[in-house]
Amino acid sequence: LAVIGGGAWGTALAIVACRAGAIPVLWARDPDVASSINERHENPIFLPDVGLDPEITATTDLDAAMVGAEAALLAVPAQFLRAVIERLGPYLRPGIPILQCAKGIETGSLKTMSEVAREIIPSTPSAVLSGPTFAAEVARDLPTAVTIASRDASLGRSFMVALGSGRFRPYLSDDPIGAEIGGAVKNVLAIACGVVCGRGLGDNARAALITRGLAEMVRLGLAKGARAETFRGLSGLGDLVLTCNAAQSRNYALGLALGRGESPSSVLQGRRSVVEGVATSAAVTRLAARLTIEMPISTMVDALLHRDASIDVVIDMLLSRPYRNE
Amino acid sequence: LAVIGGGAWGTALAIVACRAGAIPVLWARDPDVASSINERHENPIFLPDVGLDPEITATTDLDAAMVGAEAALLAVPAQFLRAVIERLGPYLRPGIPILQCAKGIETGSLKTMSEVAREIIPSTPSAVLSGPTFAAEVARDLPTAVTIASRDASLGRSFMVALGSGRFRPYLSDDPIGAEIGGAVKNVLAIACGVVCGRGLGDNARAALITRGLAEMVRLGLAKGARAETFRGLSGLGDLVLTCNAAQSRNYALGLALGRGESPSSVLQGRRSVVEGVATSAAVTRLAARLTIEMPISTMVDALLHRDASIDVVIDMLLSRPYRNE
Repeated sequence: LAVIGGGAWGTALAIVACRAGAIPVLWARDPDVASSINERHENPIFLPDVGLDPEITATTDLDAAMVGAEAALLAVPAQFLRAVIERLGPYLRPGIPILQCAKGIETGSLKTMSEVAREIIPSTPSAVLSGPTFAAEVARDLPTAVTIASRDASLGRSFMVALGSGRFRPYLSDDPIGAEIGGAVKNVLAIACGVVCGRGLGDNARAALITRGLAEMVRLGLAKGARAETFRGLSGLGDLVLTCNAAQSRNYALGLALGRGESPSSVLQGRRSVVEGVATSAAVTRLAARLTIEMPISTMVDALLHRDASIDVVIDMLLSRPYRNE
Repeated sequence: LAVIGGGAWGTALAIVACRAGAIPVLWARDPDVASSINERHENPIFLPDVGLDPEITATTDLDAAMVGAEAALLAVPAQFLRAVIERLGPYLRPGIPILQCAKGIETGSLKTMSEVAREIIPSTPSAVLSGPTFAAEVARDLPTAVTIASRDASLGRSFMVALGSGRFRPYLSDDPIGAEIGGAVKNVLAIACGVVCGRGLGDNARAALITRGLAEMVRLGLAKGARAETFRGLSGLGDLVLTCNAAQSRNYALGLALGRGESPSSVLQGRRSVVEGVATSAAVTRLAARLTIEMPISTMVDALLHRDASIDVVIDMLLSRPYRNE
């Protein structure tokens, strides 16, 4: 099994695969990450305080990562996926499937991760892994449930078997686009939740925001051909709830700082990890406009991050929307 | 407007009604509560640190509460509702509607609050108010959104107008049974969430529990004739998210204590407020059995609270359920 991406999530997925009996090879862009994993069996930059099984090895060479691999798990940040797939393509033997593990929408093309892959490697079988998964908890073997979604049920099942274990429970879905929209939009909504909390607006307001946020996530999903019920599942509601309630979430933490009055640039400065919701808020807002659907919360986040809007103004706008049916 | 119930929620609803322009009279069982409200304009037992508008008055006399009232808001604990409605019935003039504001299922009859009312006062028009509402936040005028659900759309709209204000936003629904099932089951799931957190199982596990909990809430709702999409709304997901994430929730706090090893009786001893999920877990479990649907999480909570089950055993049972589709 090749795991493409040496961040927290790629490393945690390698641990999961190893527990389930696979021998994972991890591709990392950063030579320091690869050598830490190979020599000290740890990834202190992205997943500190976790010891790795020595069966997990790493390389900075895509060719080496793919030799003998029966599948590739893609866990690179959304905005880098295209470049990685373009490099990966030549090493993907026919029939070797990919599992999309990153969450986001590409800002240039407004495509989901699977749509980006389909454009570049259209004949590669593909599934999506999503759901409420803080990498640090997965690495520590705390109980976690995920969605594995594919139009090809037997491919979904084979990833379920390859990754599932007592404390890492995959549930199957046949709606990959729904899983992807949920995973992308939740990062944007988590920023909004952080803002509401940082501003001291209370738990009722946060719960209402999560609920109305899910409603706009569903609207985008339906416009993209997803099924509404997917958003009640782990990749929709589950991931949304996780990301909107924990300071562990980079997106929520960003919102919290904004709500307390810090500027976006001061918060983001010097971060090594990508805060996916920042780019995705712009992509989602443009996508909503293109599909002519209303996404007031995501639009608010985009305005805060990219158009210098004031927090109090956007909150007042949200609270003064007309009454409506749910 | 008569508000029946002098607890935290009844008092907060009186504040909401007053802000929206009504003159609420609150009925309280406890003479100390009524005299505090009338003389000192506060309810220190159930809603401390909140000053009440002097327009809000209280009485222990149901007849006096209902004189001239154009509607009655019912905010008494679920297991006391039957007795209160039986006493209230004679004072309800024909056509005066009720708004159900309590959440729970009666343990004896396994009926929702509206079903109990329909049995006793079948010709009284009725609506349901539900959603993510910590009373203390509503009282402080923090932004809150709720569902008002009625089969009679014009009744729903009139309650929306009577209660809605800038920071208390009602959304309309035509699925009262869905709203009630959501409000009842979420208290049970909040106890389960508290257990998972008290046990240190992490945020991934809590998010998975909330998601799978929503799935069993939907199963019960569908069996009772509700619509699945109602559970994506404020009275379903919204209230569930609120109750499962905040130590303010009595139900979550109970679960947290259980998860840390305290016994149910030691936690509940000496409480003045009712922890709705305790009785409702038993009612929901019996209702699920009667309707032959699976509700493993609610059943686990019932087993912990009422059948001396061990926490580790029930958690292992949840984690060892067979893999399935979402």
